[in-house]
Amino acid sequence: MQDSDPPVVETRVPGAAFGGAPTIRDVARIANVSIGTASKALNAGGRLSQETREKVLRVAREIGYRPNDLAQSLHRAKSRTIGIISNDSFGRFTFPIVEALENRLAEEGIAVFMCNATDDPARERQHLDQLLGKRIDGLVVTARRADKRPPIGPLAHGLPVVYVFSQADDPAALSLLPDDVGGAVLAVGHLSALGRKRIAHITGPEHFEAVRLRRQGYRSALSRAGLAEVDGFYRPGVWSEAWGREVAAELFARREKPDAIFCGNDQIARGAADALREMGVAVPGDVAIVGFDNWDVMALATRPPLTSIDMNLKALGREAGDSLLEMIAGRKLSGVERRPCSLVVRASSVGGGGG
Amino acid sequence: MQDSDPPVVETRVPGAAFGGAPTIRDVARIANVSIGTASKALNAGGRLSQETREKVLRVAREIGYRPNDLAQSLHRAKSRTIGIISNDSFGRFTFPIVEALENRLAEEGIAVFMCNATDDPARERQHLDQLLGKRIDGLVVTARRADKRPPIGPLAHGLPVVYVFSQADDPAALSLLPDDVGGAVLAVGHLSALGRKRIAHITGPEHFEAVRLRRQGYRSALSRAGLAEVDGFYRPGVWSEAWGREVAAELFARREKPDAIFCGNDQIARGAADALREMGVAVPGDVAIVGFDNWDVMALATRPPLTSIDMNLKALGREAGDSLLEMIAGRKLSGVERRPCSLVVRASSVGGGGG
Repeated sequence: MQDSDPPVVETRVPGAAFGGAPTIRDVARIANVSIGTASKALNAGGRLSQETREKVLRVAREIGYRPNDLAQSLHRAKSRTIGIISNDSFGRFTFPIVEALENRLAEEGIAVFMCNATDDPARERQHLDQLLGKRIDGLVVTARRADKRPPIGPLAHGLPVVYVFSQADDPAALSLLPDDVGGAVLAVGHLSALGRKRIAHITGPEHFEAVRLRRQGYRSALSRAGLAEVDGFYRPGVWSEAWGREVAAELFARREKPDAIFCGNDQIARGAADALREMGVAVPGDVAIVGFDNWDVMALATRPPLTSIDMNLKALGREAGDSLLEMIAGRKLSGVERRPCSLVVRASSVGGGGG
Repeated sequence: MQDSDPPVVETRVPGAAFGGAPTIRDVARIANVSIGTASKALNAGGRLSQETREKVLRVAREIGYRPNDLAQSLHRAKSRTIGIISNDSFGRFTFPIVEALENRLAEEGIAVFMCNATDDPARERQHLDQLLGKRIDGLVVTARRADKRPPIGPLAHGLPVVYVFSQADDPAALSLLPDDVGGAVLAVGHLSALGRKRIAHITGPEHFEAVRLRRQGYRSALSRAGLAEVDGFYRPGVWSEAWGREVAAELFARREKPDAIFCGNDQIARGAADALREMGVAVPGDVAIVGFDNWDVMALATRPPLTSIDMNLKALGREAGDSLLEMIAGRKLSGVERRPCSLVVRASSVGGGGG
């Protein structure tokens, strides 16, 4: 047997190359699916195509992934609890992340302590002390912030920490974020594929990193489509409907009007759609609109309903759970990982009637 | 000394009458403030008037309340953890409750496990088993539900449980809810005080208890103001802007039009305001509008901004924390407690311009 097993050794190489037993992350990477999809396939849960499920299981066999590796390594999880520190008092963005994370960890019998620090460093430190006193096995930090945050302090040294929808100013940290550039490219690519040539971008304040990244995606997609950025068509401002209304009205008072608007969030998009309707401009006939966030409350109530970019926050939360489990099991993970957004097409870009 | 202390005994009588040492609940009741306000005054936190703070401290002295009573009784809190089971996957209503509850318990050094059951009884049971395995000291159940829920099962026997924004079908349970009847009375009372005579009510589906209670408040306030309920002016339906738009358009096609609309939520109110603006009906000139929820995203973006009823969810969450602490300390609490809503006046009912 030993003389004839080079192929088996061969298939184990990827695992060895990762500095340990292959993990679900390796399975996902090699099968070219998300960790969430790999997890669903391996746990026989969720809705997946037969083909995808078989591909994942085949890769798992080939690289010698054993589903029990994680469970076995989780003996390191002494308290079987982790903490989440959230700084998003609004909750709209963090709630789906926290919910998916909690669901993922519950599958491994790990419970989640929830703490709201609402951007108060003293309060965050107090929460952290309390969590460390409870001997948590890991920590997730989430937030809706304009920019990078300082990393969790020295008290947490050695504790696995995942930042999700939040980015630590520390190269050794693992931060999971939506791909804002890619999301903007999807939006603008969709509009240019529909034949739109004069695409404006109304967005939030530039001190948000997301605003700068989405602008980058907007420019890159315009350039890929061979389109020029019209002077005055990029309009940073505030995250509100009123801003969307104001700029839309202004742009349509110009001689050279846009034929499409990519908005930095769904509130701005809704404001723009309202202003255009009231000016008698047909959406999407005269102007196609794409929002960002795919916030159903806004997107579905807009007339016509908004095409929007979905940040897949539940998938992000689930992956944060997977990553934290791996770190608890002893792997070192770091870096800034950006996960793809999705385009959700509704009547504001390709509707028959609308407006 | 012993011969001369009747006054001291006197001031302790109220405490004795409660079957134990006076608690913060007693202080609040006697000082005629909320438990949250009493807690702030006693903990020297939060924004309070000097007068209120002094009144609370005086009552506390008079009835012999000792702030340490709770802390001392909390030796019963063995694990210094409690669980929250939420069934609200949307999060808009439960998030402020959970946040305030978590803040309150953190003051006592008690950490909160968060579990989402998303209305799946099997999942709820699994969470409960897990929480009991962690020897939680108490449990809070919260949800956005149409109606009463079955109480937490026999496994939780003896465990302090508080239902908040949720009502257990069990007379021995403590349920904390917003006063929906009172909220509707506030709304309709405001409109009738403004001289409105023909007040319509567009609302959500009648299988929601909140819809039935708000209707009751609507009728009772009409009757108090000596106003008739016009046939066809009460319109239950769905919780959406589209429903608000549809009914507003219909009501204004009638011969006898309303001069005010009380809406069951802010989405309906926003839809109504949009439809009226597009029909050229002035808000609040021709029709005043009041919403419910005071959901800033909706209320502030509506043109004109919405007057609305606030359910004071943070206060409800904080009180749930106070009540759970008392139960952990050994008090028995039960019953359905309804807490007052507030009226937040904006331009949709008393604006100068608007429309």
